[in-house]
Amino acid sequence: MRNTFGSNVTITLFGESHGPAVGCVIDGLTPGIDVDDEAIRNLLSRRRPSSIVDTPRREPDNYKILSGVFNGKTTGTPICIMIPNEETKSGDYLFGPARPSHADYTAHVKYNGFEDYRGGGHFSGRITSALVAAGGTVIPALNKLGISIGTHISECGGQNDRDFSSSEAEMTEEIRSLQLKNFPVLSDEAGEKMIGQIEAAAKDCNSLGGIVKTAVTGLPVGVGEPWFDSLESQLAHAMFSVGAVKGIQFGSGFEGTRLKGSEFNDPMRLNNGRTVTLSNNNGGINGGISNGMPVTFSVAVKPTPSIARPQQTVNFLTGKEEELVIHGRHDPAIVRRICPVIDSVTAIVIADALVTAFGPQVLVKGKAIWNTDL
Amino acid sequence: MRNTFGSNVTITLFGESHGPAVGCVIDGLTPGIDVDDEAIRNLLSRRRPSSIVDTPRREPDNYKILSGVFNGKTTGTPICIMIPNEETKSGDYLFGPARPSHADYTAHVKYNGFEDYRGGGHFSGRITSALVAAGGTVIPALNKLGISIGTHISECGGQNDRDFSSSEAEMTEEIRSLQLKNFPVLSDEAGEKMIGQIEAAAKDCNSLGGIVKTAVTGLPVGVGEPWFDSLESQLAHAMFSVGAVKGIQFGSGFEGTRLKGSEFNDPMRLNNGRTVTLSNNNGGINGGISNGMPVTFSVAVKPTPSIARPQQTVNFLTGKEEELVIHGRHDPAIVRRICPVIDSVTAIVIADALVTAFGPQVLVKGKAIWNTDL
Amino acid sequence: MRNTFGSNVTITLFGESHGPAVGCVIDGLTPGIDVDDEAIRNLLSRRRPSSIVDTPRREPDNYKILSGVFNGKTTGTPICIMIPNEETKSGDYLFGPARPSHADYTAHVKYNGFEDYRGGGHFSGRITSALVAAGGTVIPALNKLGISIGTHISECGGQNDRDFSSSEAEMTEEIRSLQLKNFPVLSDEAGEKMIGQIEAAAKDCNSLGGIVKTAVTGLPVGVGEPWFDSLESQLAHAMFSVGAVKGIQFGSGFEGTRLKGSEFNDPMRLNNGRTVTLSNNNGGINGGISNGMPVTFSVAVKPTPSIARPQQTVNFLTGKEEELVIHGRHDPAIVRRICPVIDSVTAIVIADALVTAFGPQVLVKGKAIWNTDL
Amino acid sequence: MRNTFGSNVTITLFGESHGPAVGCVIDGLTPGIDVDDEAIRNLLSRRRPSSIVDTPRREPDNYKILSGVFNGKTTGTPICIMIPNEETKSGDYLFGPARPSHADYTAHVKYNGFEDYRGGGHFSGRITSALVAAGGTVIPALNKLGISIGTHISECGGQNDRDFSSSEAEMTEEIRSLQLKNFPVLSDEAGEKMIGQIEAAAKDCNSLGGIVKTAVTGLPVGVGEPWFDSLESQLAHAMFSVGAVKGIQFGSGFEGTRLKGSEFNDPMRLNNGRTVTLSNNNGGINGGISNGMPVTFSVAVKPTPSIARPQQTVNFLTGKEEELVIHGRHDPAIVRRICPVIDSVTAIVIADALVTAFGPQVLVKGKAIWNTDL
Repeated sequence: MRNTFGSNVTITLFGESHGPAVGCVIDGLTPGIDVDDEAIRNLLSRRRPSSIVDTPRREPDNYKILSGVFNGKTTGTPICIMIPNEETKSGDYLFGPARPSHADYTAHVKYNGFEDYRGGGHFSGRITSALVAAGGTVIPALNKLGISIGTHISECGGQNDRDFSSSEAEMTEEIRSLQLKNFPVLSDEAGEKMIGQIEAAAKDCNSLGGIVKTAVTGLPVGVGEPWFDSLESQLAHAMFSVGAVKGIQFGSGFEGTRLKGSEFNDPMRLNNGRTVTLSNNNGGINGGISNGMPVTFSVAVKPTPSIARPQQTVNFLTGKEEELVIHGRHDPAIVRRICPVIDSVTAIVIADALVTAFGPQVLVKGKAIWNTDL
Repeated sequence: MRNTFGSNVTITLFGESHGPAVGCVIDGLTPGIDVDDEAIRNLLSRRRPSSIVDTPRREPDNYKILSGVFNGKTTGTPICIMIPNEETKSGDYLFGPARPSHADYTAHVKYNGFEDYRGGGHFSGRITSALVAAGGTVIPALNKLGISIGTHISECGGQNDRDFSSSEAEMTEEIRSLQLKNFPVLSDEAGEKMIGQIEAAAKDCNSLGGIVKTAVTGLPVGVGEPWFDSLESQLAHAMFSVGAVKGIQFGSGFEGTRLKGSEFNDPMRLNNGRTVTLSNNNGGINGGISNGMPVTFSVAVKPTPSIARPQQTVNFLTGKEEELVIHGRHDPAIVRRICPVIDSVTAIVIADALVTAFGPQVLVKGKAIWNTDL
Repeated sequence: MRNTFGSNVTITLFGESHGPAVGCVIDGLTPGIDVDDEAIRNLLSRRRPSSIVDTPRREPDNYKILSGVFNGKTTGTPICIMIPNEETKSGDYLFGPARPSHADYTAHVKYNGFEDYRGGGHFSGRITSALVAAGGTVIPALNKLGISIGTHISECGGQNDRDFSSSEAEMTEEIRSLQLKNFPVLSDEAGEKMIGQIEAAAKDCNSLGGIVKTAVTGLPVGVGEPWFDSLESQLAHAMFSVGAVKGIQFGSGFEGTRLKGSEFNDPMRLNNGRTVTLSNNNGGINGGISNGMPVTFSVAVKPTPSIARPQQTVNFLTGKEEELVIHGRHDPAIVRRICPVIDSVTAIVIADALVTAFGPQVLVKGKAIWNTDL
Repeated sequence: MRNTFGSNVTITLFGESHGPAVGCVIDGLTPGIDVDDEAIRNLLSRRRPSSIVDTPRREPDNYKILSGVFNGKTTGTPICIMIPNEETKSGDYLFGPARPSHADYTAHVKYNGFEDYRGGGHFSGRITSALVAAGGTVIPALNKLGISIGTHISECGGQNDRDFSSSEAEMTEEIRSLQLKNFPVLSDEAGEKMIGQIEAAAKDCNSLGGIVKTAVTGLPVGVGEPWFDSLESQLAHAMFSVGAVKGIQFGSGFEGTRLKGSEFNDPMRLNNGRTVTLSNNNGGINGGISNGMPVTFSVAVKPTPSIARPQQTVNFLTGKEEELVIHGRHDPAIVRRICPVIDSVTAIVIADALVTAFGPQVLVKGKAIWNTDL
């Protein structure tokens, strides 16, 4: 389905970096969800370049909801959100020399030369603003059900943020604090060091990658499906739609493979009548299904491909080798801006998985549905 | 779609560990593909427990093709492969105390107590034999097109295998060699050490995890889709259907996030008129689409959950905390047996992605289609 | 998705007429549904040739449930039902001369000559036994919720059955009576005349078609989706999967197009607090969504293609025109045998639409879910 | 998937009658297809009310392509077409008394009262303009491949148009002529009589239904799938998404059920080396797969529900019975305006089925692909 994702709550993406608009269609949301313009604007502003560590392209993100919302609430029919591209300067973009680590070459072959190459076209990070607009629609609804989603930059430029607390209550508090930060880290001191590294890379005409870590609290037991629609499958599927993502790991992930079974297995205990685990190496998921513990995962973000240094490339128009220097200024690191994107993608997957597990009304009724036997 | 995966080539899984049979339905395979019984048997035998490092359960895997194959070739209609469960001893299995790190608890909640709990039921690794039977149907067809898929144990018990060669030709040769090995490693010396570690863990009533690494050579440029059906999304989605998998990374993955853009970006050059990259940090995929370089990824395999040591758990029948000792013998590590599963899952995803990109005849015509402009 | 249908409750078909078995995989059924062997056997026996008006091929339909059922109840995981082909005599079947009105020619072109041509292969009516086995699993569950599904032969050989009563209670009673009849008509006198016509056609080496009419009572308001997943879309989609079906009409259908708006529009009134309509020209569906009235539709069944008369054809092996006489004996009319198939297909669609509208538990909780606001 | 349809070429609909815009996202179209603004405008104008027989609402249909088209050609990425609603007068619409034969009541129950009720909201025929915009994108591409699609009003107000010619060449010519007519009939004399009947009904504050008949010529053999994705299933599924459609029949349809097998079976002959049938009772489809003859089907269009006469209804706000008079003027018959909608829906289904059968390049290469063995 290429640009459509989900089973019961679906999202369809469209748009090119320098076309008239980017946007999305979200279908299957329960009727009666409050659509909170401020939440959408806030989330979009968190994704927008705004600081020294980002590109200077400044899109106002004047999104417009074309359908599916009436009197401030979802109607249950498809919500189309359009975000016009207002700051496009197509003159900056060449056609022919493929930018290494970008989709220029693969898109050119796949689309037989008919691709809109300007600014990466449909492969541009610009399209993630549509994901974020969708996230801004879904996240407040999940929050009302007691589900929180947050992402922090866990590593960048050799600097590590401290980890989420193991206490779910504290973790939920940390998630809340992350929404308010321009540079989403748990330790502002670590954040300062990361920013220093990013600035240094920028000055050096270079770029950095990093690792971001996400936590979801408040998710009930029983969300996800066996085998092909495991919650891990769905989250991973959606995350890898974001071009810069090159890896995902749940719970203790790759590091956890070095533990022995006796160390890795999360001991199960009762806590006020609720089954919990004393550790969370499984990242809140067993057999593809949520176990009631926080769902945690890390995502590997590759260094921004566009750097202002000469690079070896091939020009697919001339068929010759070339040296390429990418002009214009670009994000020296996208770890900051990717956090609201990851939150949004997570929210979309969680909303879909909840509806699949409990039926459409779960997005407005929450516990009243998942705590009874319905 | 829970137990069905794929767009044009689809696979549907069914079965429980101790039910009459496990199996799969593969739909959308091009008519005229030779179905090679020996390939299926070989691949199943590679997955089957066979050595000191595996469980002693010995399933003969007498699979039966119920449909979709006629005169030794695919007909183009659904292929149902059934593998009877012949070695089931249900007496060994308890109901109530959840085995930590297993799906017992989550399945119990999700299925309201109606799950077939025996041996993990539908969540048992036993079902992967159906994936492997499907892989045995698809892999020889891909091989005929010049596409090779291989997986080696890259890390287990603190021991590291050497990496695949960077030369595609050598890599293809290494892939071939892995198919012939009982313990699929590139360095047999490293393999011996890993086996020693697994045996030691087994003696200690413990288990090990590990990391396996996969390479796909011979894939043409242009396979995969933008955004939600990126080749990474599809591979990750399918891999996380396997219960023990807790992470996946493409190319240089998490380690690659520590590189700068100038180090990470794969320089592009011409090699006999073909566009290649001098490094492969992107794992052969840009913008979700194959770039003609080998597709490489690593998968994190958690330590086998079943260990013969007392573990803290909760009994969901009594609602009380318990200490659990799992009897019977189990795989002290599944890194060996998971390799053909990963190969199979990869083959299914690649076959689907090829048909989506080039149409159904690509699975029998290969280059004749993808090298022309059709 | 070819051989898979449905959104939340899905069915995947497999099998060829003369292969080892036909069958299906039903996924997404709520855990805890009683699987009633007698219901499955009964429904299969209603589809089985059993009288003078059917083919003499006598398949025992010894179906086997391979997965997804435990202790007599659904587990919530995929149910694979296999029905071995035991009465195959492949010698009867030619390859080359296409039987007119059959899929021989189209399958030969589509599958490049690799199709299993014996007895129509995957296009054989034999595969509908798998649909019926699925129906036998689903129908009793719907019955428990107060939903009844029945189909009668409304026209055959120039004879018309009387119509369903307009009273829903009487209609439900009529539906019940149809399940018990060998030749499902509301007026046995009309049925006798139809049987006479079928026998006359058979003696004349000819065949008859007919129209069958289906009613669904007890369906709540609000089932179905706007636009592409309208209840009519879903039912029509599924019905046309059955090869002999050439038309479907809901409510007053084609005849209703001759009414004026003032005659066609169903007046709305209250009946014990429930909104009802005084007529049912819309067949219980408005805007693709059930309105609480009985869902009614008719299906056009073409005359059985296989007749023992010389027919003009083309031999696709020789590329020459030929005269073909089909030997063996065949159903002179399938209107009788198609009724349980239509019932089954309807049940599968209804189950899926219910789960999509109300969540998975609706199939065991029924009114407790759809009458509250959950 | 509710508002998304298709396997490889997909369409997603959005919009409400009185919201900011209606529109669609078309995904999976081959790159390099010319997007012909005039064709889109023409098709939209054919759907637009323009004569005495239609509603006086006059939407300019100033559609805007937001993505997926570059330099006048498809890029291969999603095409979003937005059509602003410019002529909305919401004051005309009541909330509470359900209009009989409309979706007011079912939508109100399904969406728990959160539906945008103005002018039928998401259930309005207005949304079909988005289908037509999609059709205008796809139809010229099919025409270039030699595939023609046309629909005529075959019956309305007791008047019958003459039927399509049986010669495929003449039929193709007739299809062409239909595109140029304001009132698409084959016999203008019959058309005049129909218009007279519609005018009479309008004067009488009443409305008419009708039957429209569609033909597709030039389709190669082998398009469509067995069972659930039969070409009939796909076409029927898509047609029933249009609210006014209550029936569909292929070939000789319901009337054909009255033929004997010897009369119904289409005799097969050779014509210049091509296999043809001498009659076309099967409507160009056998076993769900196109046989190379014209695909023909009729669609039942119910009388327009909105009539300016008192009607019995129930007010779902007060829960009381009411008499309702619908004010404003409405189409006294939509048989004229539905023809380009049916053409468009047919084109979308055919494009999808072609890509599924032959791969994505078929939409630009046509015969070069389907006539070779690729």
